[in-house]
Amino acid sequence: MALRVAVAGASGYAGGEVLRLLLGHPQVEIGALTGGSNAGTRLGELQPHLLPLADRVLQPTTPEVLAGHDVVFLGLPHGQSAAVAQALGEDVLVVDCGADFRLKDPADWEKFYGSPHAGTWPYGLPELPGHRAALMGSKRIAVPGCYPTAVSLALYPAYAAGLAEPEAVIVAASGTSGAGKAAKAHLLGSEVMGSVSAYGVGGVHRHTPEMSQNLSAVAGEPVSISFTPTLVPMSRGILATCSVKARPGVSAAEVRAAYHKAYDDEPFVHLLPELQWPQTKSVAGANTALVQVVLDEQAGRIVVVSAIDNLVKGTAGGAVQSMNIALGLPEELGLPVNGVAP
Amino acid sequence: MALRVAVAGASGYAGGEVLRLLLGHPQVEIGALTGGSNAGTRLGELQPHLLPLADRVLQPTTPEVLAGHDVVFLGLPHGQSAAVAQALGEDVLVVDCGADFRLKDPADWEKFYGSPHAGTWPYGLPELPGHRAALMGSKRIAVPGCYPTAVSLALYPAYAAGLAEPEAVIVAASGTSGAGKAAKAHLLGSEVMGSVSAYGVGGVHRHTPEMSQNLSAVAGEPVSISFTPTLVPMSRGILATCSVKARPGVSAAEVRAAYHKAYDDEPFVHLLPELQWPQTKSVAGANTALVQVVLDEQAGRIVVVSAIDNLVKGTAGGAVQSMNIALGLPEELGLPVNGVAP
Amino acid sequence: MALRVAVAGASGYAGGEVLRLLLGHPQVEIGALTGGSNAGTRLGELQPHLLPLADRVLQPTTPEVLAGHDVVFLGLPHGQSAAVAQALGEDVLVVDCGADFRLKDPADWEKFYGSPHAGTWPYGLPELPGHRAALMGSKRIAVPGCYPTAVSLALYPAYAAGLAEPEAVIVAASGTSGAGKAAKAHLLGSEVMGSVSAYGVGGVHRHTPEMSQNLSAVAGEPVSISFTPTLVPMSRGILATCSVKARPGVSAAEVRAAYHKAYDDEPFVHLLPELQWPQTKSVAGANTALVQVVLDEQAGRIVVVSAIDNLVKGTAGGAVQSMNIALGLPEELGLPVNGVAP
Amino acid sequence: MALRVAVAGASGYAGGEVLRLLLGHPQVEIGALTGGSNAGTRLGELQPHLLPLADRVLQPTTPEVLAGHDVVFLGLPHGQSAAVAQALGEDVLVVDCGADFRLKDPADWEKFYGSPHAGTWPYGLPELPGHRAALMGSKRIAVPGCYPTAVSLALYPAYAAGLAEPEAVIVAASGTSGAGKAAKAHLLGSEVMGSVSAYGVGGVHRHTPEMSQNLSAVAGEPVSISFTPTLVPMSRGILATCSVKARPGVSAAEVRAAYHKAYDDEPFVHLLPELQWPQTKSVAGANTALVQVVLDEQAGRIVVVSAIDNLVKGTAGGAVQSMNIALGLPEELGLPVNGVAP
Repeated sequence: MALRVAVAGASGYAGGEVLRLLLGHPQVEIGALTGGSNAGTRLGELQPHLLPLADRVLQPTTPEVLAGHDVVFLGLPHGQSAAVAQALGEDVLVVDCGADFRLKDPADWEKFYGSPHAGTWPYGLPELPGHRAALMGSKRIAVPGCYPTAVSLALYPAYAAGLAEPEAVIVAASGTSGAGKAAKAHLLGSEVMGSVSAYGVGGVHRHTPEMSQNLSAVAGEPVSISFTPTLVPMSRGILATCSVKARPGVSAAEVRAAYHKAYDDEPFVHLLPELQWPQTKSVAGANTALVQVVLDEQAGRIVVVSAIDNLVKGTAGGAVQSMNIALGLPEELGLPVNGVAP
Repeated sequence: MALRVAVAGASGYAGGEVLRLLLGHPQVEIGALTGGSNAGTRLGELQPHLLPLADRVLQPTTPEVLAGHDVVFLGLPHGQSAAVAQALGEDVLVVDCGADFRLKDPADWEKFYGSPHAGTWPYGLPELPGHRAALMGSKRIAVPGCYPTAVSLALYPAYAAGLAEPEAVIVAASGTSGAGKAAKAHLLGSEVMGSVSAYGVGGVHRHTPEMSQNLSAVAGEPVSISFTPTLVPMSRGILATCSVKARPGVSAAEVRAAYHKAYDDEPFVHLLPELQWPQTKSVAGANTALVQVVLDEQAGRIVVVSAIDNLVKGTAGGAVQSMNIALGLPEELGLPVNGVAP
Repeated sequence: MALRVAVAGASGYAGGEVLRLLLGHPQVEIGALTGGSNAGTRLGELQPHLLPLADRVLQPTTPEVLAGHDVVFLGLPHGQSAAVAQALGEDVLVVDCGADFRLKDPADWEKFYGSPHAGTWPYGLPELPGHRAALMGSKRIAVPGCYPTAVSLALYPAYAAGLAEPEAVIVAASGTSGAGKAAKAHLLGSEVMGSVSAYGVGGVHRHTPEMSQNLSAVAGEPVSISFTPTLVPMSRGILATCSVKARPGVSAAEVRAAYHKAYDDEPFVHLLPELQWPQTKSVAGANTALVQVVLDEQAGRIVVVSAIDNLVKGTAGGAVQSMNIALGLPEELGLPVNGVAP
Repeated sequence: MALRVAVAGASGYAGGEVLRLLLGHPQVEIGALTGGSNAGTRLGELQPHLLPLADRVLQPTTPEVLAGHDVVFLGLPHGQSAAVAQALGEDVLVVDCGADFRLKDPADWEKFYGSPHAGTWPYGLPELPGHRAALMGSKRIAVPGCYPTAVSLALYPAYAAGLAEPEAVIVAASGTSGAGKAAKAHLLGSEVMGSVSAYGVGGVHRHTPEMSQNLSAVAGEPVSISFTPTLVPMSRGILATCSVKARPGVSAAEVRAAYHKAYDDEPFVHLLPELQWPQTKSVAGANTALVQVVLDEQAGRIVVVSAIDNLVKGTAGGAVQSMNIALGLPEELGLPVNGVAP
């Protein structure tokens, strides 16, 4: 029997990617599609790549429109999810692609988002210890941020195995879709093509506390994060370079073993053979994370590089994967593992 | 009176960029142009953007062809420069864009390049303490590597002012021209567009000892380098993100003052106003380095981001700037400071 | 029961894309994978995006290796397919992604390819009149060239309806994957990013006679082709702009009706709503062709623009679609219709 | 003695490029810089690549601010130039980068722009017959549109020599800067990277009558234009493919001779050697147009391809070149001929 699924915020990049995946999901029937200022517009104008939905018209994001679905995905600006979720009732699975319910500590939320904390939901990164179990049967899912997904997958095995000092230095390159579809001059093609830029430097990016929360939980002690995001000229993809000081006496074999242990049985995270480094295009359009790790003995540091598609494993794919778990479906259902390359 | 200048390796990216700059240099007359396997080919086929030289035919790289010039630029594969330089004689200014004479420690050279050390020449990064003076009147110049240029300019002020611990974590994004013009499948447009990848991770990139050499000299103690280069989908540009632990008690004002002191009088290095971060396109085609720095008090780290054009300030522009100094010409002669943007 | 399918030339772009699609095809089991100089290499090194096949090792392209399969896809340089097909026997379905069996007129073949003509196979563009029927039950399929696919889909309805004079002017923009994976300097990322170039201008491109063959058959008279291909900075996609003089008295309504008639029932060709023009990204990774047409009354010309993914509808997708038809499977099986965008 | 030059609209792409060129012009002193909604902002925030002007603050575009200059460049939305020019007086050289004064026929203007015609100024494409003379001493210059520049340079020699029928089919690929700096969702990097799209198809693009005007004047009869513009994923550059039916009996030698005659003495237009086709990157940042032509004897058509930088020869470079002519300065002063490549 098909699940009836609505998508609120269907005109944005997150909503569009959720729809692309749901169109390939064998158990899903796509229900209501809503938008904000785009309500009333044909989806074919807004998401011309979603041909089977081209003639659908966006409806406003109201409780009435979203009622009567088994699952509702939210791709809304932060601050709007709580009200929508409350109106939907407790028996509907609500999957929030936004930030509202990711952080546990209200102080973190208030410092980085400047508004009252809405709460905390089970966190849709099933590969982290304990998370898969917490998702099973849940009716609320907070989809992780794209950078925290890439970074947490890169570093958690090192912390879980006690191999690293609790200070991580992270530089991540992101495609421009991570910045969303709102028209801003600095995101014009003319500006971003042929250019790499840094932004949110020095600890101010909103994904910083989320990374710290994830890694501290695994490490059993507070992990300090120095995070620098950069924007690179491509539409999709994140490459995260993560460097941590190795604890004294740690060997390359221990490092590698920790990553094998973490990922050998995971369907969507792939530890590459030694010496092969990730590239984002290998995972374009796929729910796959590629990870590689090396111990730089000269510098005494463990360096981990991970690659994801920010819109898939970093958003919509992680959301569908978590939905599958929550509903007791096979975790891999409807999720591509092969990238579209070249 | 015009200087007669030859370029050996005129068909490659370094040689082509040297020529582009020399065509705009008021004191230079372009003499012999040589190539390896491309000898006998019209430059118009190899460098179609250099219109005034289109009908020049490349000659073989021999002492006879290169004789009779005041200045010879070398854009040759490493290992070939020593023999050419020796044949040219001591009164000719030889500017080597390759790696052969950059490193001081023969052990470093042998470890990273696997061949006997050729020697050490004055180093063409005039902004580093003492280097401008060493270049004056010199007849031999080793042009720095592109990554060491970006990284040394980013971090030297922090080390010169004693603000940072001697362990640097660096992640740099480079355009593909840094990998040269030799045809390799992984550098095809089809592969690099839409993708970011890491390579040479874990302390094995050949520019690592050069960075350490530069920063250790300034710091007065050995500086350990953890360097990860990444390839991004653009032709030109390097964005280097450099993170160092701040020494206890260092303030944001001290950090900023150190960078003002270092760069306020430099013609080609520009400290951006606070909160504005560099982008590589701003320096495309220009001999400019943009630098921004912040103290992340939460993480206790100084984060510096620098942007250069790898082919200009990172190679050919640094070479011409150093030539100007060596010959007693105005340092800025023939060097563009404005990027070609958007 | 699963079909056992081999791919000869699995390291190239055509072969890789065939594999990406076959991995999503519910009736297919992937058998032998072969390569030329890459035989002996793990597929994970050559096609890192095809994770489920990463540990497969390429075998040499020999009759013994290819024996015992129901279907064999050939992604070989032209001139090699005839011998391989002959060795496979008449009961194996051979799908040739190369050019060898596309042209009917041996004189055309010899003029454009300079070698003896190998023959003509049923042509894998089922949307053209009569082709779908010819593919049913066939054991040999010649997959069309990527440009002829885009151009024939754009123009055949105009010719089928007798609306256009038999002289077509075509300018097509192609992503670089159309030029293959062999390393050539002019295809380096450094060269193609930020640049558009024309090539094969003036009637010399090898796809020209194939376009003429397709359109002449529909028009019932020889159609002259002026074709200019251009290379644009993206990995995938073709946008073909096709301009033909309208026959006297032709109306906009007749033009539109002809295209509706041709495509309203086609699963993979989509006539866009009026005023919406195709973009290649909408079909990236999909077996979809987008078409739009307008009558420019001032100039007296019908202008048609089509967009395909050169590697999918233009090669591997057309190949799988034709395989489905030949084998009596549902035509749409295993073929994505939604592009991966943005 | 330095010319005092103001730029109205200094925050846009045209204004920025005029400034980049003026900074390298030996006779120019940069005076007032104005903006619309950006008045009051540091130029360093808006044009971070123009370092010497970083601390300049934009002023409002008023007669008082623009008074007292020898030359005023206008980079304003169309419809605004007439009033500004009138206020400046007849002794100031006004160079309008906008469309207002390009068209001669008021009916053309009203049809394509929907507002009253402001008039016609000498047209800043000195390579067209008679135009250089008309610019000398003029105090008003209408800078051509970017597409008409590329197309007129490509086709005028064929029409001037009477070689072509008066119907031209043109498909041009443009980088995104041609669409300006106003933030629009379809111009976001996420949308344009990896995609080519057509727009303004079927005779509705505003540059169409300008092309017809230029070519008809040369041909001595009305030339019909079928023009299709496409947007390609790069910041700068136009590649125009222009196809015209050859008059009966025209030979390849006649075609080539016509182009040699037109361009052998032009400083900024370069006819490439036979078989070498233009690429836009060769002219990035330069005031150069590359042209190649071939007679396709099979199709009976002359095909011409031209490449320019839309912001230089297509806007700001053409503007400065015309200013030089108008003021009696050497035509090439301050204008780069070498592209920034790769």
